[in-house]
Amino acid sequence: MKATILNIGDELLIGQVVNTNASRMSQMLIAAGIDVCGTYVIGDNGADINFYLRHCLERSDVVLITGGLGPTKDDITKKTLCDFFHSELYENEEALANVKRIFDARGYELTPINRQQAWVPRCCTMINNVVGTAPCMWFELPQANESPDGVNTHPTSQNSPKVVVSMPGVPFEMVNLMETEIIPRLQQHFRTDQIINKNILVQGIGESFLSDLIEPWELALPKSIRLAYLPQAGMLKLRLTARGGHNERPQLEQQIADAVKSLYPIAGQYIVGEDLESLPELVAYTMKRAGKTLATAESCTGGALASQLTALAGASEYYKGGVVAYSNEVKECALGVSHDTLAAHGAVSEETVRQMADGVRQRLGADYAVATTGIAGPGGGTPQKPVGTVWIAVANAEGVTARLLKFGDRRAQTIERTCNAVWSELIKLVNQNNPVKPL
Amino acid sequence: MKATILNIGDELLIGQVVNTNASRMSQMLIAAGIDVCGTYVIGDNGADINFYLRHCLERSDVVLITGGLGPTKDDITKKTLCDFFHSELYENEEALANVKRIFDARGYELTPINRQQAWVPRCCTMINNVVGTAPCMWFELPQANESPDGVNTHPTSQNSPKVVVSMPGVPFEMVNLMETEIIPRLQQHFRTDQIINKNILVQGIGESFLSDLIEPWELALPKSIRLAYLPQAGMLKLRLTARGGHNERPQLEQQIADAVKSLYPIAGQYIVGEDLESLPELVAYTMKRAGKTLATAESCTGGALASQLTALAGASEYYKGGVVAYSNEVKECALGVSHDTLAAHGAVSEETVRQMADGVRQRLGADYAVATTGIAGPGGGTPQKPVGTVWIAVANAEGVTARLLKFGDRRAQTIERTCNAVWSELIKLVNQNNPVKPL
Repeated sequence: MKATILNIGDELLIGQVVNTNASRMSQMLIAAGIDVCGTYVIGDNGADINFYLRHCLERSDVVLITGGLGPTKDDITKKTLCDFFHSELYENEEALANVKRIFDARGYELTPINRQQAWVPRCCTMINNVVGTAPCMWFELPQANESPDGVNTHPTSQNSPKVVVSMPGVPFEMVNLMETEIIPRLQQHFRTDQIINKNILVQGIGESFLSDLIEPWELALPKSIRLAYLPQAGMLKLRLTARGGHNERPQLEQQIADAVKSLYPIAGQYIVGEDLESLPELVAYTMKRAGKTLATAESCTGGALASQLTALAGASEYYKGGVVAYSNEVKECALGVSHDTLAAHGAVSEETVRQMADGVRQRLGADYAVATTGIAGPGGGTPQKPVGTVWIAVANAEGVTARLLKFGDRRAQTIERTCNAVWSELIKLVNQNNPVKPL
Repeated sequence: MKATILNIGDELLIGQVVNTNASRMSQMLIAAGIDVCGTYVIGDNGADINFYLRHCLERSDVVLITGGLGPTKDDITKKTLCDFFHSELYENEEALANVKRIFDARGYELTPINRQQAWVPRCCTMINNVVGTAPCMWFELPQANESPDGVNTHPTSQNSPKVVVSMPGVPFEMVNLMETEIIPRLQQHFRTDQIINKNILVQGIGESFLSDLIEPWELALPKSIRLAYLPQAGMLKLRLTARGGHNERPQLEQQIADAVKSLYPIAGQYIVGEDLESLPELVAYTMKRAGKTLATAESCTGGALASQLTALAGASEYYKGGVVAYSNEVKECALGVSHDTLAAHGAVSEETVRQMADGVRQRLGADYAVATTGIAGPGGGTPQKPVGTVWIAVANAEGVTARLLKFGDRRAQTIERTCNAVWSELIKLVNQNNPVKPL
């Protein structure tokens, strides 16, 4: 079963807004077992919308459209879809109640133009958008092989009517609709395969060594389960994907649970977490699991470590805070780095990074601390310490471990890679001192 | 003159990577006076590449392709283009020297597979990619109205041969090629109009008041210059766009310079900067212009203020550092917020945010300081202080100004909007105390 994605909006076409919707939608579709064969960005232009809607219907079973549903004149998606399906607009009661509710909550008066948000084509199923004013519209093609305009389309995989869904382009409204309404309805409508994904995060062993170690386990997996190795910054992700018929979800869930359980006796010492997407999520999980607190001291990462942690809800459970010590004075006054050390070895040195980590841990009263100092560039390099030279450290009450890293001259990349290296070292240390208990 | 963008890669299609290339390319094309009529994401699939290349050639004068140029088997763009243009691959000397240079610099051995990076179709112009190993390829269609396969394409606006450009998908390689090679070559090839954009940033006056104030100036602008109002977070951007013939660049530059100069006597007191893209850039410009230093104290923004500043090169010229005071202990020990204040008013209060700003300014020895404390959510709200309640403060030696903000329950949005509000207040205060001198 195949899907195409059509993102409509002049702001996307001219590059004013980065189109994050396409990748979010693709991820959700693929996780649900629906293949994506193309994504298209076009402007708010009736002829283009018509052309690409036809084109997408020829290529796929479902066309997911975002954008062009606002109340202003330049948003023409709804009118264009209404004409495409030879329908007419009417005021939908449920949609109107939703628009009224949202305007009431914000204390705004409902103008006639805003009221038009509740108008939808008669031929569609209105799907309520509870987090926004533009309703979602679900269209089915009356005949499997022919669109209303007589355009031939290839028969769908399941001989179910083809589907066109129009959603608002506001990312969180789209995500909410996809998760709660569209994906479940598509799975029902097309009786798609059930897909269950399970991620197991591994550290401290190379891909090929792990592969040898778990080969017998892998060979014993049921045929419904596939295994993929996905190396990521600072960790290796093992992804188990179970795929089965429309009604087989309970069996698949059991198979996945059994597979995971039987992996622990073989490779448990390398498993650092399950079902986490990013390194900062893994840090949060690891610190909470160990019941320990953390502080950060940052020079070259300049607050990136802190903001990665605090972007996730619940950071206050383990994160005490940090110091961004951009100037040497701050390294001295806020972290207690010694003036002599800075004079003798410089700000970018093993001695300084060790004192930064130790200083922030003690001053902020945390169990663990991490520190960074380096030359992110493009300026500031010397022959001895070229741009890209970075020292990182991880500390606890037992001591400090420091490491030298060497990157290139791209500032953003150096900051990002330094963060990844810091998180990796921290997770390793915390897990060493607070071993994961066997299940 | 019209362009289409074709981004090739399975990783884009399945949503593993967000396609930032399309928006970056669109911005650059539009700034150069080239319209974008569609952008397409397809997988590493020969049939699709062929189909959409034909499709794009029918719709536009230039097709810009990214991706699929790596040395592995799944990257098939080069081979597919070579077949499309009925050409054959050969080893290009200049491309080979470039690949060797990059491998030497990294200390890697050049394997036969990597050497294949230097092979390009005979019919194309090889454009050296100095920051990566995959060369860029420039193809021209031999006849204006016909592709090599006999597909009819509409005549180009300027009757110049149509152009197909294939670039690597790595964002910084693409950006470097677009800026230094592709845009200038397209302007030359199609003898496009010259476009000059100039941004003037304004604060402290509403759009409609400014519009009234500068109306006589606007009416006196030469016909070649258009004015647009672009409201952004925390500032208003006035964009002047001058457009003229292929050889008129010097005249256009003079017209823009004259227009900007004549705006200052009318609206100079509201102008806070020129040609800056974001609020953090404006903060950096403002602090450097005033020659003052800055410190940050963050609770709910959790390092986002610091990392926005330090993401820009040269931050050490004005940014001393900051404290991420996530826990109350850190607010006390690292910022000197009084225990009694925290007990009586709570961490999210005017009294606390004032002491945070003042404390970090004094302790880090900075001229100015900003502070944030709030409930970013989703947890932690109370009836008196619901999720989204945020206090911000701006301080200098003369005193502290605090402001209450109210946002919703979306964490990332609250953090982002708090940062924008803080930067706005800071720029206002610094400009008040360090007025821009008239030109």
